[in-house]
Amino acid sequence: MTATPQHAPPQAAGGWVVIAGLGPGDEALVTPEVAAAIADATDVVGYLPYVRRVADRPGLRRHESDNRVEIERARHALSLAAEGGRVVVVSSGDPGVFAMASAVFEAVEHGLPGWRTLDIRVLPGVTAMLAAAARVGAPLGHDFCAINLSDNLKPWSLVERRLRLAVEADFAMALYNPRSKARPDGFGQALALLRTLCKPARLLVFARAVSTPEEAIQIVPLAQAEPEMADMRTVVLVGAATTRLIPRDPRPFVYTPRSVSA
Amino acid sequence: MTATPQHAPPQAAGGWVVIAGLGPGDEALVTPEVAAAIADATDVVGYLPYVRRVADRPGLRRHESDNRVEIERARHALSLAAEGGRVVVVSSGDPGVFAMASAVFEAVEHGLPGWRTLDIRVLPGVTAMLAAAARVGAPLGHDFCAINLSDNLKPWSLVERRLRLAVEADFAMALYNPRSKARPDGFGQALALLRTLCKPARLLVFARAVSTPEEAIQIVPLAQAEPEMADMRTVVLVGAATTRLIPRDPRPFVYTPRSVSA
Repeated sequence: MTATPQHAPPQAAGGWVVIAGLGPGDEALVTPEVAAAIADATDVVGYLPYVRRVADRPGLRRHESDNRVEIERARHALSLAAEGGRVVVVSSGDPGVFAMASAVFEAVEHGLPGWRTLDIRVLPGVTAMLAAAARVGAPLGHDFCAINLSDNLKPWSLVERRLRLAVEADFAMALYNPRSKARPDGFGQALALLRTLCKPARLLVFARAVSTPEEAIQIVPLAQAEPEMADMRTVVLVGAATTRLIPRDPRPFVYTPRSVSA
Repeated sequence: MTATPQHAPPQAAGGWVVIAGLGPGDEALVTPEVAAAIADATDVVGYLPYVRRVADRPGLRRHESDNRVEIERARHALSLAAEGGRVVVVSSGDPGVFAMASAVFEAVEHGLPGWRTLDIRVLPGVTAMLAAAARVGAPLGHDFCAINLSDNLKPWSLVERRLRLAVEADFAMALYNPRSKARPDGFGQALALLRTLCKPARLLVFARAVSTPEEAIQIVPLAQAEPEMADMRTVVLVGAATTRLIPRDPRPFVYTPRSVSA
């Protein structure tokens, strides 16, 4: 405890926080590293449907919370660890991509000084865009970007600006959180913008709940893309101008070639 | 075999190709799905150091090849599967990110018609940028892009154009393949360009061989970044303008906040 800064509250020994990625849904996509951390935890903290993915066992305390309370959840996890808890904060996919890792570090920066001396680790996972891309081929096989379409935490104008610049750079794109009940219209605006910037044949992949029993994949040209094809469990991949379709039954392959000629 | 198109050569039953991501190095980051595919394979195909990551066992044929022969390697894997082989093509990280998946689909598109009817699947993995980001905090916690700095398969002018547009969009960035013996100068040019576009305090993370015994992490402001900090085993993360450093011993945390104000 000698490294504890002045004014920090005393901390119980042995506590830690692990922010762990559970992958897109299938247990076969959870890394052994994450499984081991969960097996060693006293507390699991997270958004309700992700906590429910962790099997119950004696001695494991479960702390389920609602969506949109990420900072409160992060502070709770840090408090539990400061009291000696071995705390796993669970995220779907990878915790560093539009998930809990950033929220935990924000809570650390603005929280109790003692939280900075805690043992805090992030364990990576298979993020939604990689699982979705794998399902259809290799649409992210060249340079690409990932954009969170939610404007809960940034202005919508910034979303549109990034879409414009991503098309100008000819990045393939992964669009996270495209559409929700609370945000029914943004994704339609994004599609309308893409139609002004890209040819109608530009390839889109709507990948819903990949690797779960509810998995559904649609591959369509931009001209046929509809806002209703996406919900909060969908990641939308937008091909680059070079992205290609290989016809095939029952579903084509989609891939972006590694080469761009001068 | 009824779905085999006309003119396709006859195929032996039961063959398949799986393009599998081995993650960044640590066995604890290999998904159970990938481990199961390797256990069921008759052939493992890939770049020599990745094939050597697969444990030897009776009945497993190993096909190691050199770097830069991706299409030949892909055609070899497809031929083996067409003869009935259960073939795993191994990539480091995720196979869909600057790795073998795109090369295999390119070989399918331009190869024998019968290859299109093969059972070909991509199994995702933990790509280098996610492992690197996890190690230091959450530098990719907001919108970001991934750029392959190699100009083997695209003109260098396109690399520079994408760097400019990524800074304009204020994406955090993951730069893959920053520097090699054959390309000693490009990364220095990229750093010089970034210095004209970003403030000197912009945060960079040099993450080498994450999760292996050779792991080395350096976190520096752009002003102190040197080309020699990177090699072919390094992924370089460039923070967004909003990316923050939380001082801490022995190593600070780096994270990009989820919010951007209007």
